[in-house]
Amino acid sequence: MDRNAKNSVGAVTPRAEKFSEPITLASGAVLDQYELVYETYGDLNAARSNAVLVCHALNASHHVAGTYANDPANVGWWDNMIGPGKPVDTNRFFVIGVNNLGGCHGSTGPATVNPATGKPWGGEFPVVTVEDWVATQAQLAERLRIERFAAVMGGSLGAMQALSWSLQFPERIGHALVIACTPSLSAQNIAFNEVARQAIITDPDFHGGDYYAHGTRPNRGLRVARMVGHITYLSDDEMAAKFGRHLKHGRLLYSFDTEFQIESYLRYQADKFSEGFDANTYLRITKVLDYFDPALKHGGDLTLALAPAKAAFLVISFTTDWRFSPERSREIVKALLDNRCDVTYAEIDAPHGHDAFLLDDARYHRLVAAYFDRIGAEVGA
Amino acid sequence: MDRNAKNSVGAVTPRAEKFSEPITLASGAVLDQYELVYETYGDLNAARSNAVLVCHALNASHHVAGTYANDPANVGWWDNMIGPGKPVDTNRFFVIGVNNLGGCHGSTGPATVNPATGKPWGGEFPVVTVEDWVATQAQLAERLRIERFAAVMGGSLGAMQALSWSLQFPERIGHALVIACTPSLSAQNIAFNEVARQAIITDPDFHGGDYYAHGTRPNRGLRVARMVGHITYLSDDEMAAKFGRHLKHGRLLYSFDTEFQIESYLRYQADKFSEGFDANTYLRITKVLDYFDPALKHGGDLTLALAPAKAAFLVISFTTDWRFSPERSREIVKALLDNRCDVTYAEIDAPHGHDAFLLDDARYHRLVAAYFDRIGAEVGA
Repeated sequence: MDRNAKNSVGAVTPRAEKFSEPITLASGAVLDQYELVYETYGDLNAARSNAVLVCHALNASHHVAGTYANDPANVGWWDNMIGPGKPVDTNRFFVIGVNNLGGCHGSTGPATVNPATGKPWGGEFPVVTVEDWVATQAQLAERLRIERFAAVMGGSLGAMQALSWSLQFPERIGHALVIACTPSLSAQNIAFNEVARQAIITDPDFHGGDYYAHGTRPNRGLRVARMVGHITYLSDDEMAAKFGRHLKHGRLLYSFDTEFQIESYLRYQADKFSEGFDANTYLRITKVLDYFDPALKHGGDLTLALAPAKAAFLVISFTTDWRFSPERSREIVKALLDNRCDVTYAEIDAPHGHDAFLLDDARYHRLVAAYFDRIGAEVGA
Repeated sequence: MDRNAKNSVGAVTPRAEKFSEPITLASGAVLDQYELVYETYGDLNAARSNAVLVCHALNASHHVAGTYANDPANVGWWDNMIGPGKPVDTNRFFVIGVNNLGGCHGSTGPATVNPATGKPWGGEFPVVTVEDWVATQAQLAERLRIERFAAVMGGSLGAMQALSWSLQFPERIGHALVIACTPSLSAQNIAFNEVARQAIITDPDFHGGDYYAHGTRPNRGLRVARMVGHITYLSDDEMAAKFGRHLKHGRLLYSFDTEFQIESYLRYQADKFSEGFDANTYLRITKVLDYFDPALKHGGDLTLALAPAKAAFLVISFTTDWRFSPERSREIVKALLDNRCDVTYAEIDAPHGHDAFLLDDARYHRLVAAYFDRIGAEVGA
C-alpha cells in the first residue's frame, strides 16, 4: 500500500442517531434528548476491534474525510490523515467522526428546536464541556456496538477529548493520540477566547443568543472572533513567510482599505467562516476549551488527574505552536510517565504553529502511520 | 540626589500651540492648520541644551508626568521615569510631552472641528505616520526655540518616533532612547491591529467615523480592540503569574458571566479605555504603527535606512516582549552598528512583556538614569 497515494474515502453520507435518555451535563443542566450526526469510513471488522474515533476541534465537524456526492468540493477537514493508504488507513480501520453536542453541523445545538418551547434553543442552550462530549460519544459508541476503540484521536480541542476518553472510559480505549494539546488553557488562551466572546455577545445582532427569532446573525462579532482565533493558530514565522509586509496593491494607499496582504487574508477567512458557522456554537466551544482542566478536581495535580488512564499514548506537539506550546504537551507526558503509562512523545519541528496538526507534514504523518501500524498489529487490523 | 525618591513634578498645566502653515502629510493630504497640546517639566537651561522630548505610544498622551491641580489622581503615564531625582531628572532636564497629531487629548484630531466644514473631521481626518508626527514635533520645537534635543525618547510606538527623529532631523537630536521598539511591524503585529480596526469599523455605532454627528460612540468595537491589544502588551508568563486560572467566583458557574479573573480584568480594562479614548484616533494610531518601516524606501535594507543617523543611541528591549521581541531590537542595533553609530544596547530580563517599558523595573531605571548622567555631562545639565 502506497501511503503517499492521496486516495480519498470518496463520497460519504452523514448519519444521525437520536438519544432519548436524559443526560445531565457537567453544568447540572439536563438535556432530555439529543441527536448526534456522524460519519464513518472503512469497515468495522468482525471482532469490532478496529474502530477509531476522531474528535474535532473548534471549528470543524463530523465531516473528517471524503466528500459529498452533491458537494464534491467539500472535503473533510482531516482528509490528508484519514483514507485508504493514509496514516489512518481506512483499508484497515473503521473511522468515526462525530459532530459534538452543541455543534452547528447537524447535532443538537443552539440552533436546534427546543422541544419544550417549540423554538430554537438560542441563548438557553446549556454550556457543555469536554467531559459532556466524551459522555455523548460513548453513548454513540454503544449504539454502534463498539465496546472499545482501538484509538481515540484528535488535535487541539480534539486532543482534549482523546485525553479525557482515557480518563472517563479507561477500559474502552486502547490508544489515545493527543496532538497539539494542553492540560488546560493558560490565562492568555482564555483571554483570547474572551475577546472572541465579547465580540459576539456585544454585537447588536446577537440578541442574547436568540438571533434566530430576530432573523439576524451576529456576523460582525463572529468575524472578529474568527480573526483573533486565526492569528493564534498560525506561527509568527509562518505569517512572516506567507505574508510578511507584502502590500495588497503594490503601494501604500494611506486609507482603511486593505494595505497589507495579511489584512486581506484575515478578512477573507473571517467572511467565509462567519457565513458558515453558528455564533452560539462558537461561544460554547470557547467555553469548552476554557473549562478543560482535568487537574482541577485534584488540587491542580495533573499526575493524580491522569492516574485512571490505561491507554497507550502518542503525544505530539509542534515547535512553533505558541497557542498550546510543546511545554504544555510535556506536562501531559510527564504526568502520564509518573503514572507509568505507555507514552510515545514527539515534538515535530514544523513552522506552521498550532495549525500544524491539520497539515500534511511528512515527518508527522509518518509518525502517525507507524503508530497505527502498531495499533493494527495489536487489534488484528 | 536620591533617585529612588518618588518625587513628582507636581501639578502641571497643558499648553497649546497653533500652527497655521499648511503641512503636507505622508499620505499627500494637506492640513491647513493644526494645534498641538503639550506639557513641560523642569526648566530649559540658558544654553537651551537640556531639552528632552518624550514621545507617547498608542494610548497615551502629552500628560507624561505629574498630576493636574483639579484632577490629582490623573498621574502622567511615565511618572515613574520622569521627575525630580528620577531617571530623567527634571532638576537637570527640561522635558516635553506632546499629544500627537490625530490624537484625542487636545491636539488636532478626528474629533476636532474641520474649519472647512464646521463639523468634526470624523472619518475624513487623514491617516498620519510616525514621520508626520516627528515633523510636527519639530515645528513645536522651533516654536519653543529648541534647536536641538539633548534626547528624544519613547517606548514602543514612542521609540519609533525617537528613531525617526534621528533620521529626519539628525542634527537636531543628541541621543535617541529607543525602548521596546521594532524596525517594522510583523505580519502578526499587523494582523492584531487589523482585528482591532475591524472591531471598530464594523460597530454599527461607528457610522464611517462620523459618529460624533450621530451622537454615538463605537464603544463595543473599541472595547474589543483594547482587549486584543492589551493581551499583546502582557507576557504569557506575567498573565499566568497574575491571573492563572483563578476563578472569579471561587467556583465554576457554567455561564457566560466572568468565570476567570482574567476575563474580569480584561472587561474592566476595556470599559475604562473605551470611555476615555476616541475610536477614530485609535484607528489612526494602529495605522501609524503598521506604516512605520524606514527600510521600505531602501529596498528593505535597514542599514541603508539608518545611515543618516548621527545621534547616540540607547536601545533597550525586554526578554518577555513577544509583541516587539528583542530580536527586532537587535535588527536596529545591528543596522546602527553597521553605520558606526554610538550604540548602547541592553536586553532587560523582565517578566512583564511589552508593557515592561512603562514599569518601574530597577535595572531598567538604573540604566536609563546612568545614560542620562552621560547626557547631562555632555550638555552641562
